[in-house]
Amino acid sequence: MDFYKKSVELHRKLKGKISIECKCQVKDRNDLSLAYTPGVAEPCREIHKDTNKAYELTSKANLVAVVTDGTSVLGLGDIGPEAAMPVMEGKAILFKTFANVDAFPICLATKDTNEIVQAVKWMAPTFGGINLEDISAPRCFEIEERLKKELNIPVFHDDQHGTAIVVLAALINGLKLVNKSFQKIRVVINGAGSAGIAICKLLQSAGVKDIILLGSKGIIYKGAPYNNSYQEKIANTTNPRGVVGGLKEAMKESDVFIGVSVPNVVTKNMIASMREKPIVLAMANPIPEIMPNLAKEAGAFIMATGRSDFPNQVNNVLAFPGVFRGALDVMASDINEEMKVAAAYAIAEIIKDEELNTEYIIPDSFDPRVVKEVAKAVGDAAINTGVARIPYR
Amino acid sequence: MDFYKKSVELHRKLKGKISIECKCQVKDRNDLSLAYTPGVAEPCREIHKDTNKAYELTSKANLVAVVTDGTSVLGLGDIGPEAAMPVMEGKAILFKTFANVDAFPICLATKDTNEIVQAVKWMAPTFGGINLEDISAPRCFEIEERLKKELNIPVFHDDQHGTAIVVLAALINGLKLVNKSFQKIRVVINGAGSAGIAICKLLQSAGVKDIILLGSKGIIYKGAPYNNSYQEKIANTTNPRGVVGGLKEAMKESDVFIGVSVPNVVTKNMIASMREKPIVLAMANPIPEIMPNLAKEAGAFIMATGRSDFPNQVNNVLAFPGVFRGALDVMASDINEEMKVAAAYAIAEIIKDEELNTEYIIPDSFDPRVVKEVAKAVGDAAINTGVARIPYR
Repeated sequence: MDFYKKSVELHRKLKGKISIECKCQVKDRNDLSLAYTPGVAEPCREIHKDTNKAYELTSKANLVAVVTDGTSVLGLGDIGPEAAMPVMEGKAILFKTFANVDAFPICLATKDTNEIVQAVKWMAPTFGGINLEDISAPRCFEIEERLKKELNIPVFHDDQHGTAIVVLAALINGLKLVNKSFQKIRVVINGAGSAGIAICKLLQSAGVKDIILLGSKGIIYKGAPYNNSYQEKIANTTNPRGVVGGLKEAMKESDVFIGVSVPNVVTKNMIASMREKPIVLAMANPIPEIMPNLAKEAGAFIMATGRSDFPNQVNNVLAFPGVFRGALDVMASDINEEMKVAAAYAIAEIIKDEELNTEYIIPDSFDPRVVKEVAKAVGDAAINTGVARIPYR
Repeated sequence: MDFYKKSVELHRKLKGKISIECKCQVKDRNDLSLAYTPGVAEPCREIHKDTNKAYELTSKANLVAVVTDGTSVLGLGDIGPEAAMPVMEGKAILFKTFANVDAFPICLATKDTNEIVQAVKWMAPTFGGINLEDISAPRCFEIEERLKKELNIPVFHDDQHGTAIVVLAALINGLKLVNKSFQKIRVVINGAGSAGIAICKLLQSAGVKDIILLGSKGIIYKGAPYNNSYQEKIANTTNPRGVVGGLKEAMKESDVFIGVSVPNVVTKNMIASMREKPIVLAMANPIPEIMPNLAKEAGAFIMATGRSDFPNQVNNVLAFPGVFRGALDVMASDINEEMKVAAAYAIAEIIKDEELNTEYIIPDSFDPRVVKEVAKAVGDAAINTGVARIPYR
């Protein structure tokens, strides 16, 4: 792929994609006296009296750390913190470009769960929010859970919730077209890593009752010997019909297939075995679980992938910039389920009913309305659920 | 002071002094494919193969962390990490303005020596250098020592070495005017905290044999019950004449007084008791150990302070931007004694012999030649001492 060579050239030319810039000039002694000593002592004193003043007098209110340990980077796996840096810088420029969030990459030289939690807690005073990125499952679950509990700023693992929010948005619109409801559909999720489990939980928050989740060894069920503790926990609330077997058995008579797994694992027969007007979200990258043309031939009514060269691209960039913009705007202490669901509805509602069709259930990644609407919805949800420090905007 | 009120207004208006900016645009899918997925996978792979490629393909090569625990901020003392942020951001904008270094504040929510060392080690992959700032003595010594040993990027505690470098520069020029040599002068340093001890060590590196260092309880001597371990260590190499007592006894028959202590502790009598053509660097801020007019009346030949409203301002900004610029330019793994001494000579040599006079031994803080000359000298010293990764420029 020519992208690869061109990308290396671009990175080499730029020597990295981010820079730190000054919001004020320091041209003379007067500037120095205000931005630095002696004047700066006074903002320091104000914050010392009331820590919340940091949101007014420093960059904290708009600063997000993009934190990784480099264990699960793109499709590349555990490549380490140094090699993860180009992706984290990429994330930072998306934060800036899409939502004017100042995001800074922190690539950690440890893979230990306790140590990652500790590192983030120690550096937290600088930041208004934490975006966890490309940390492998199941450690990512515990790290996020603990940080959410122990910090008073929002913590969000994008690989989990960014994907989950966009998938939920796709289904909100998709179900309108097929005239089905969250309460009655049967959903199959192939892939029980960070994205798969987060999608499962968010769909449950949205009202879905019947989900079958599959890991690399087949259907997740209560007491399966290969489950990790997070899979075991979710086994309690999934597979209500007690389906046994693999992907073929799971997909039979289902309404929605969601793939966050590996290329080409879904066959035409599997699609054909689904209920009427099946929705297929095949998001393995760059090659989906089944190619759109094959899925359509087999009867898929709506098809989405992770790719920009097919209709209906499920792309995290529709979610995370607006989610953080909204959370930061109200100085939220958390990003909770209600805020994520609100983000999904905001994304879905960008597309008006009269525009909605099987090839347009997800807005374009560059649609400028998305970040604005998502931020507003997320901020309102933060206010309504009591996690905003500012109860007005 | 009106500066205080104006500074709060400036900080409130700006909401912090730094922002993260993109070095490339992301306007469309093509941009996204190069700066982010799928293209970015290739720079990641290159770095995974050879970690040193991070210096070519990411922002690491120009990124410095400004790390504090907020325990010794300006004259404000232990005000905590949140309240330290305005100073750390101020430092970041000086780094950018003076030397085009991308510096990012990290304010740590721990004061524990081991934990600070650990936090910095974990986040090190992101950075090309670490600037420690406003960490109280004696913890700052151990933290810097251990980080220098355990990391392969330069670590520099500016409160120690920044001040020390500019003091050395002032003495290089001052001694020319009084026609004395480092080997023969007697130096008194009042203040045995981070700056005092660092000045002592750097003057020894420059050849000074006779230094008396005083802490808050008087002259530091071997076996003094109040010494911390760093003072105890330095007691072995100072006070060679075994002078007993306080500041009065120390200053008698000395050539140079260096104050990094508290206002108004030096009397006219003490100045008058010094050897001929005494040099007085009284750097307590904002009120020096003795005011310049009093010192001059008592016979001080050269007078310097930390203030911009008197001649000869000792200001760290003459040192740290160029020191890091030089270290980063050659991808140095350390900032060693030779590099600091080279920085001091570069600062001193900005002033030509024919320009040199008692009111101009230190260049102006805004003299644009300083950072360039310091960076070059520091880079060359790094190459000559084998700590540069690039043996050419």
